[in-house]
Amino acid sequence: MEKIQLKVPATIANLVCGFDILGMAMNEPFDEMEFRLLEEPKIIINHTDSFGLPTEPEKNVAGVVILKILEYLNLNLGVEVSIHKNIKPGSGLGSSAASAAGAAFGLNKLLGNPLSEKELVHFAMYGEELASGVRHADNIAPCIYGGITLVKSSDPIDIIPLSSPNLYVAAVHPQVEVKTSDARQILKKHIQLKDAVTQWGNVAGLVAGILKNDHALIGRSMNDVIVEPVRSILIPKFDMIKTRSLELGALGGGISGSGPSIFMLSENETVAQNIVEMMKAEFTSIGIESLVYVSKINNEGIKLI
Amino acid sequence: MEKIQLKVPATIANLVCGFDILGMAMNEPFDEMEFRLLEEPKIIINHTDSFGLPTEPEKNVAGVVILKILEYLNLNLGVEVSIHKNIKPGSGLGSSAASAAGAAFGLNKLLGNPLSEKELVHFAMYGEELASGVRHADNIAPCIYGGITLVKSSDPIDIIPLSSPNLYVAAVHPQVEVKTSDARQILKKHIQLKDAVTQWGNVAGLVAGILKNDHALIGRSMNDVIVEPVRSILIPKFDMIKTRSLELGALGGGISGSGPSIFMLSENETVAQNIVEMMKAEFTSIGIESLVYVSKINNEGIKLI
Repeated sequence: MEKIQLKVPATIANLVCGFDILGMAMNEPFDEMEFRLLEEPKIIINHTDSFGLPTEPEKNVAGVVILKILEYLNLNLGVEVSIHKNIKPGSGLGSSAASAAGAAFGLNKLLGNPLSEKELVHFAMYGEELASGVRHADNIAPCIYGGITLVKSSDPIDIIPLSSPNLYVAAVHPQVEVKTSDARQILKKHIQLKDAVTQWGNVAGLVAGILKNDHALIGRSMNDVIVEPVRSILIPKFDMIKTRSLELGALGGGISGSGPSIFMLSENETVAQNIVEMMKAEFTSIGIESLVYVSKINNEGIKLI
Repeated sequence: MEKIQLKVPATIANLVCGFDILGMAMNEPFDEMEFRLLEEPKIIINHTDSFGLPTEPEKNVAGVVILKILEYLNLNLGVEVSIHKNIKPGSGLGSSAASAAGAAFGLNKLLGNPLSEKELVHFAMYGEELASGVRHADNIAPCIYGGITLVKSSDPIDIIPLSSPNLYVAAVHPQVEVKTSDARQILKKHIQLKDAVTQWGNVAGLVAGILKNDHALIGRSMNDVIVEPVRSILIPKFDMIKTRSLELGALGGGISGSGPSIFMLSENETVAQNIVEMMKAEFTSIGIESLVYVSKINNEGIKLI
């Protein structure tokens, strides 16, 4: 195979209560990536989007992943990657994870699949490390495996694919900046044991709801007593949007990853459409532009075109 | 129905990582309880065991549950209960939960089932409150529902029955005293966020392992970085017994409830038998008597005889 093209999905980390361990892939938005093998041993990164991301391989999220894989496999060849990002950097919708996971997945396909899925996660985490300073897999895992995934541990890597409930995702990305590093920094380093017990009760309920396909249980488990109360301060209108989404029929939802995007799950598309219209209107009313997405949960992950 | 007899199972709370939320019923040991309606409005508690438990209804775990239910249903009748406990008080095997859940279940049967399972849990928690000062349902829920249960929340009561993996339980009750209230008091009120994330990753893994019937995942999820490191100090030989159990083929295990009992799960009965022999020998070697049990996971809960 000398050339391949990929659709690489946006992902939602945490799923409210599962901070740093749960993630879910969506159908929309997605990045497009094209890979070609080169005869000369060099890496060329082209960005056809307008986000001004660096294209030097060592400074590019996809580039570092490719460098690490070529080094690991001891291959002296070149790769050209063209990336068209539709997932905006800084959206909290797994933009860096898409570049990183897409790079690992695409290069692996191009080379005839020498690496396992777990190894793809391992190498993709170098991209996340470059983007945010933290080797985390909560966006990468659903991007590669599809559906909803549990990162039981990222060192050693222990990924448990859960399943893909037949649900709709309504998501809004308000055009305000929340840096992942800031969103991490404002979290308290210590928490109360009683809050942790509430949280792991919700995490257990959410995992059970996903695996038993119990939508009501999924909804009432998406409560976060630890991270959301702190991070939601960084997102204007968060409480109002959450309350109104539930009134409109959402099962539940909250901050996507470290924000500023907000997502809501619902059982039907009309509810999801009503929710994104409300979200957009709420942000417009305070002069903030926003992008909205309605999508089913993506059960395939990255897809070859 | 004027007289009924019950077998009320021992239960293991926490299942290592699921502090205050998970619990599991065993087939052995179990209490026997017999209920009779009386014409006179009085409550008689007989203990045919030798544990010297109080028999005044207001001071007896089964008694307070019966009082609360009769008051709630506004019934002016009497009940005689004979209890033969085989689950030793203070074992960490759900002795008080058995009395409390058995009382609620038995009286409800005698009265023609006016109460739901959730209401039985509600009333049985008055017994736990009398025994330990805390209204918790992690032993009561599996006693009533059978199998492994998740107490997502105890106020409001939200119980999620999980399932009953086809596994064996090896348990040892060393004859040392660990009071539930002491075991609770030594816990730190604040914990590190990073430890909490590790813990809820394990909780999520354990719930997924139980529902996917993935025994290896169950085993590697039964790790507790928060409660066990503190409570295990109260239990002589704990670390040695855990290490040797894993060497003998246990999937995993740890402290049962607040201890001092220790349990281990395994896929076959021979492994479980080898483990309890080792456990008994370890305690004998330091002059501590112990009771051991080998049992399958009980998927029925309380049973009418």
